[in-house]
Amino acid sequence: MRQSELFTKTQKKDPRDETSLNAKLLERGGFVYKNSAGIYSFLPLGWRVIQKLTQIIREEMNAIGGQELFMPALVEKRYLDASGRWDVEISFEVKGKKDRQPGFTLGWTHEEVLTEIVSKYVSSYEDLPFAAYQFQTKFRNEARSKSGLLRGREFIMKDLYSFHVSEGDLRRYYEKVAGAYHKIFQRCGVEAVYTEAAGGSFTISNTHEFQVLSPVGEDTIFVCDDCGYAVNQDISGSLKIKKGAVCAKCKKGKFREEKAIEVGNIFPLGTKYSKAFNLQFVNKDGKKEPVVMGSYGIGLGRLMGTIVEVYHDEKGIVWPEAAAPFKIHLLVLGEATPQLKKAGETVYNGLTAAGLEVLYDDRERVSPGQKLFDADLIGLPLRLVVSEKTLAADKIELKRRAEKESRLLKLEEFIKTIK
Amino acid sequence: MRQSELFTKTQKKDPRDETSLNAKLLERGGFVYKNSAGIYSFLPLGWRVIQKLTQIIREEMNAIGGQELFMPALVEKRYLDASGRWDVEISFEVKGKKDRQPGFTLGWTHEEVLTEIVSKYVSSYEDLPFAAYQFQTKFRNEARSKSGLLRGREFIMKDLYSFHVSEGDLRRYYEKVAGAYHKIFQRCGVEAVYTEAAGGSFTISNTHEFQVLSPVGEDTIFVCDDCGYAVNQDISGSLKIKKGAVCAKCKKGKFREEKAIEVGNIFPLGTKYSKAFNLQFVNKDGKKEPVVMGSYGIGLGRLMGTIVEVYHDEKGIVWPEAAAPFKIHLLVLGEATPQLKKAGETVYNGLTAAGLEVLYDDRERVSPGQKLFDADLIGLPLRLVVSEKTLAADKIELKRRAEKESRLLKLEEFIKTIK
Repeated sequence: MRQSELFTKTQKKDPRDETSLNAKLLERGGFVYKNSAGIYSFLPLGWRVIQKLTQIIREEMNAIGGQELFMPALVEKRYLDASGRWDVEISFEVKGKKDRQPGFTLGWTHEEVLTEIVSKYVSSYEDLPFAAYQFQTKFRNEARSKSGLLRGREFIMKDLYSFHVSEGDLRRYYEKVAGAYHKIFQRCGVEAVYTEAAGGSFTISNTHEFQVLSPVGEDTIFVCDDCGYAVNQDISGSLKIKKGAVCAKCKKGKFREEKAIEVGNIFPLGTKYSKAFNLQFVNKDGKKEPVVMGSYGIGLGRLMGTIVEVYHDEKGIVWPEAAAPFKIHLLVLGEATPQLKKAGETVYNGLTAAGLEVLYDDRERVSPGQKLFDADLIGLPLRLVVSEKTLAADKIELKRRAEKESRLLKLEEFIKTIK
Repeated sequence: MRQSELFTKTQKKDPRDETSLNAKLLERGGFVYKNSAGIYSFLPLGWRVIQKLTQIIREEMNAIGGQELFMPALVEKRYLDASGRWDVEISFEVKGKKDRQPGFTLGWTHEEVLTEIVSKYVSSYEDLPFAAYQFQTKFRNEARSKSGLLRGREFIMKDLYSFHVSEGDLRRYYEKVAGAYHKIFQRCGVEAVYTEAAGGSFTISNTHEFQVLSPVGEDTIFVCDDCGYAVNQDISGSLKIKKGAVCAKCKKGKFREEKAIEVGNIFPLGTKYSKAFNLQFVNKDGKKEPVVMGSYGIGLGRLMGTIVEVYHDEKGIVWPEAAAPFKIHLLVLGEATPQLKKAGETVYNGLTAAGLEVLYDDRERVSPGQKLFDADLIGLPLRLVVSEKTLAADKIELKRRAEKESRLLKLEEFIKTIK
């Protein structure tokens, strides 16, 4: 894509109303726009990041047999009444102009909706197990939404739900999902710690979180420095775990206390929702039993914000390759002579013809300093420069965003290496 | 995909609470689930259709320079106050549990939100023109939502917005979008008539609609039987057009009156929103002017419903190839002998290895009659059958959904022909 055509621009100064680093950098780079507290638009660069993350997650969900679907945001009151979740504090209420009472909530999770849908199709043990997921906008009226993309009031979530004949079968699939989550975070470049956390009234045991260590995290977790066993602070008391204590699992390492960002969570739900919506199956002995369920979430905006919190320097974002909106930032530096313009076009066409994703800074009245500033702020993995100097050597200049050194090389050589 | 793993099933009977044909067939086929009046879930088969339509539209929007982004559903009151559209009857109102007054509407269109965003980046004529679009959920509290997918209270929309220095430049781009829309509907297999319609207080002239002729359409249009010039009934009076009258354009043909479904619309907005949000640019003479805008919509669920209204027979849906969830329905018919199962697997693996999209009916305890019934109802373009009969001939049986005749051919021959 030609940067001269991109409608967003970078900003030199931090936005006044943001305190979090991820939101500052993402807004300055033109990735997002804040419409209201905790409510963001994803602009073309930011939306490309979300699409990259979506595709990674989709591939891993399909790999464990997930069936993609799409449920509504408007969730009628009867759904939440059935599960006793209508009066949850973080929920928004919706009504028509002429309605007296709100008839809907904005879905902040979809257990109820999917359980009802599934009850139409499941009747026998032969219909189980299966899992279904969606990428869909969720709404939570969070009181504190000051962490930029980390805690939104409206956010895109991948939510997967699984349905089983028994707790044993749920457990097997639960481990499979945990494995898929590890792959997802690994592919996105973030190291996520598998962490035990509190259960609560709608789960059959403790739940698990995927936590990325970061000073801006809102969670406190205890991680064993030897075996990696991790526990959320919310259950550390009951497990008698504290900072410096010997690990309860390996009996060797010690627990370190650290701040962390929860990027994913998985819940063994049991039969709470299947009982509420009469989702039953006939087992091999001809008897009716409630279906056993699990649910599994990843917030996409939060994952994007976490990546920025982990990957940045004083100049801007340093995107890991899999999450970058484009792989390559091609800059034409210096006075736009016909010769230089032609060279820039040749390189751009060569790269795109090779199937590479390129943001091409072809802007004519922008100084080399501003272009280099923008490239560092936007943070694409590879920067290619075409200038009088590189033209004279019949080469292009390559610099990785994460490194300091640049080098000159032939365009063909670059394309060959990168492919 | 293996049909034995698909969690949905077909239904023999029409749903009780649906009157429209599109909803009846889509619900019976397991494409959608009705959660509330005018509010549907897209189940795995239906979601694949939506994804196909999305990709077609995305390609054509990108081809005319559209930049994809994603804006929020929660639109703060201040946006609608600025344009005078807060008190629109079809809008939903949203409030938090503890709020006294609704602070948000659910976006039913995004002119206001995008105009504010754009005003951050546009200052000079050099920043124009450009266009940005999204696929995003819209909400309209329609009183009559009895047309199935044709009129939802919650629905996914592609909305494109364009920004220009002058009405002349808007007109040029407007024609480009009209061309892209024709391509989109053509690719989806529906013939859309370009129709003049009323303007209204937020447009600078008449708007245009893309209308698909159908007896279930809610609109009445007049189409010249010679030149194809078409006018919506809503402005036919002012243009003195009526059924049987001589065409006002070609002076040769006569106007036919027909029912039609509006599948897309395009609006020349002028400066209404740019004035409301102070979106100005400095022109070549150094003077400030308001930006000239256009907006362009396509409802994806409605397009899907329209396709079903146009393409069906007494047995079920007859998907045009581009919109079909899978290209091929592979059926193994007859007792599941090891030999037959192996043959089915071989064909399935051969097809998927060739990159073809296949729904593979590998269900073992389902009768041939039920499988053929399901295939007709679901309506994939090509049906392949593997049975004892085809095995004996060392061939497979091919039948197009839209045709009556079937024929036997070699698997390799089929793959070669279809690729």
